[in-house]
Amino acid sequence: MRVELFSVGTELLLGEIVDTNAAYLAEKLSHLGVDVYHKTTVGDNAERLAAAVRVALERAEVVLATGGLGPTEDDLTAAVFAKVMGTDLAPDEVAAERIRAFAQSRGITLLDRLLKQARLPRGAEAVPNPVGTAPGFILSRRGKTVIALPGVPAEMKAMAEQTVLPYLAARARGEGSAALVTRTLRLVGIGESQAEAEIADLIHAQTNPTIAPYAKTMEVHLRLAARAADEEAARALIAPVEAEIRRRLQPHIYGADDEALEERLGQRLRAAGKTLAVAESCTGGLIGHRLTNVPGSSHYFLASMVTYSNQSKVALLGVPEATLAAHGAVSPETAEAMAEGARRRSGADIGLSATGIAGPEGGTEAKPVGLVYLALADEEGAVVEEQRLRGDRLMIKERTAQLALYLLFRRLQAQAEVTG
Amino acid sequence: MRVELFSVGTELLLGEIVDTNAAYLAEKLSHLGVDVYHKTTVGDNAERLAAAVRVALERAEVVLATGGLGPTEDDLTAAVFAKVMGTDLAPDEVAAERIRAFAQSRGITLLDRLLKQARLPRGAEAVPNPVGTAPGFILSRRGKTVIALPGVPAEMKAMAEQTVLPYLAARARGEGSAALVTRTLRLVGIGESQAEAEIADLIHAQTNPTIAPYAKTMEVHLRLAARAADEEAARALIAPVEAEIRRRLQPHIYGADDEALEERLGQRLRAAGKTLAVAESCTGGLIGHRLTNVPGSSHYFLASMVTYSNQSKVALLGVPEATLAAHGAVSPETAEAMAEGARRRSGADIGLSATGIAGPEGGTEAKPVGLVYLALADEEGAVVEEQRLRGDRLMIKERTAQLALYLLFRRLQAQAEVTG
Repeated sequence: MRVELFSVGTELLLGEIVDTNAAYLAEKLSHLGVDVYHKTTVGDNAERLAAAVRVALERAEVVLATGGLGPTEDDLTAAVFAKVMGTDLAPDEVAAERIRAFAQSRGITLLDRLLKQARLPRGAEAVPNPVGTAPGFILSRRGKTVIALPGVPAEMKAMAEQTVLPYLAARARGEGSAALVTRTLRLVGIGESQAEAEIADLIHAQTNPTIAPYAKTMEVHLRLAARAADEEAARALIAPVEAEIRRRLQPHIYGADDEALEERLGQRLRAAGKTLAVAESCTGGLIGHRLTNVPGSSHYFLASMVTYSNQSKVALLGVPEATLAAHGAVSPETAEAMAEGARRRSGADIGLSATGIAGPEGGTEAKPVGLVYLALADEEGAVVEEQRLRGDRLMIKERTAQLALYLLFRRLQAQAEVTG
Repeated sequence: MRVELFSVGTELLLGEIVDTNAAYLAEKLSHLGVDVYHKTTVGDNAERLAAAVRVALERAEVVLATGGLGPTEDDLTAAVFAKVMGTDLAPDEVAAERIRAFAQSRGITLLDRLLKQARLPRGAEAVPNPVGTAPGFILSRRGKTVIALPGVPAEMKAMAEQTVLPYLAARARGEGSAALVTRTLRLVGIGESQAEAEIADLIHAQTNPTIAPYAKTMEVHLRLAARAADEEAARALIAPVEAEIRRRLQPHIYGADDEALEERLGQRLRAAGKTLAVAESCTGGLIGHRLTNVPGSSHYFLASMVTYSNQSKVALLGVPEATLAAHGAVSPETAEAMAEGARRRSGADIGLSATGIAGPEGGTEAKPVGLVYLALADEEGAVVEEQRLRGDRLMIKERTAQLALYLLFRRLQAQAEVTG
């Protein structure tokens, strides 16, 4: 089965936003073993959209589009798709009822406008939107299918995962597509070239599964992809290669597939029965934000004290004024005092801290932008690390947060090995 | 002049990388007043690439492609573009000489492979690559032009800026293309449909500038785009329309163009000489993270206390245990005590707080997932707001953070109006 991806929106043609929707869907479809040979982007123009969809339906069985489903005048996807498929729009009562209930709960009065979103191509199946009002739809006629989802990434993803991807997966299976199984190993504390060098022989020897390394923010993903008659056979091809990679790179492998570092840390903390508190300076709350993205993190995450001013480091964390005066806010001594303070003030088993200069201002020759100190304190004492990072303000924040979580990962890993 | 953008590479169709090249070129072209009506992505397949280029050359005068110019077998752009334009490849001596010099300086021996990159369509003008070996090219025949650049973003950008964009700008000027100027007004505290309804008459009456609304996370962007002979004339077309929109929607307009809400808040806080501290529960640090993404935020942002456990709300913020016992952690009373506590403990002028249930667990019938309380405390007293949000855990965090910043925005706005 061939699927062509469509992204609808003039803002995409003006470069005002980067099209992450198409990349997300492309990746999910590749995992289903569905072929995607073209991606097309068109603006909010009915004629050009219709012409492009006609071209697409000549070379693919399915057009999967995002964008242009909102309540405003320039949202044309439903009307154009209906026309190209030889039908027209009709109200969908279930979708209309959802919108009425939503509007009522919010005291919204502009119902007519919102109700435009409940007009779907006649004969289409509505795709429920669990996080917004605009429904999507799936419309099949004469052996061709068009699917439309909203452009808001959170809505698009929820609807794809709940309805559209299962639908396409079932069709792909029904057509006997070869199963593509992928497995991503997630590594931290090693660079892309070094990881690749350690397994260069495997990468060259293998074609099924293929092995491809990808560099992410202070981590590396190794993606293994195998094709076989069914999923079980594909998994059997991956297993020995994964085992060999794990044998060589185990200390760096923190998880697999969609598992983020903070999720693995959460499992480790729960298994060890330990609690955590964080003291943040240059990361501004990002470490706490990442840790609390994990459902259930309240079981082990007690608090993060984002102490941006020196005075708040003293008042909230008990960092000695003398330490700040003698060594400055960005110093190993202050990092250690912050980690100890986070632990003591919150009553947590482990205190983790980060202090540094995110820039673009505030750097000096002795302490340049990108200089960062990380510390971890627990019942065994404290460790402090110095890092010199590059990038703009946000990149330095992200890299610092990742390295702080890596410091915690190593500590928990070492302790698990001792007790395990 | 119409340009169609092409992105060449199977990795784009597998979703392994996000296509930032196309967004970059689209934005640059819009500033030149060049029309881009389509973007097309195709894989490393000669037949499909040729077919797609033929389609593109029927609807645009210029095809501008990135990717597929490297030294490996699957780099097909030069050969396919030559064929579609009715010519073949020939060695380009200047390009070959550059590659030889580069290879020698690095001790590279795979010269044959690299020299493949010096074979360009016969009659093409080479586009020099100041930061790599692969040259690009511009080839014009029979009123149509194809342009190819490498896919590596740093090389693509350098070559676009040095050669391709000046070339296209000169052609656009020669053809009397108009300058396009865009202006984005950023609104908070109003939905997309309501914003559109308030200015529906303007949207319909206007074609230059056009006005288009876009929904973002708990905010709306209104994009005005005007075409005129030069930038100054285009700006003059936008000014009165922007003034009328501001007259109608002023309380909601927090900024323009790339300015984020946290940046505007920073300016307001600095102008008012006020400091801020935050107390976060369900947002986990995200409010602090956003506030500290602004360079210079240390001038007004003192601290954020991310108090995830009840015990940390008591110990770090001084929330009375009786309040937690009587009303729970997610309650107007606790939100107010958190905001007061953040202010008192940090010595800030303003305390801002958020407490809620981000899910997916922890909801009850009385307090469902998505129930959030926000509070702001300053010398005038405290205000508390209840919100009922939808979405997954991350969306509820993001929406809560945005609404907390909006609460602060309104307070600073009201105070600025009194003092101003």
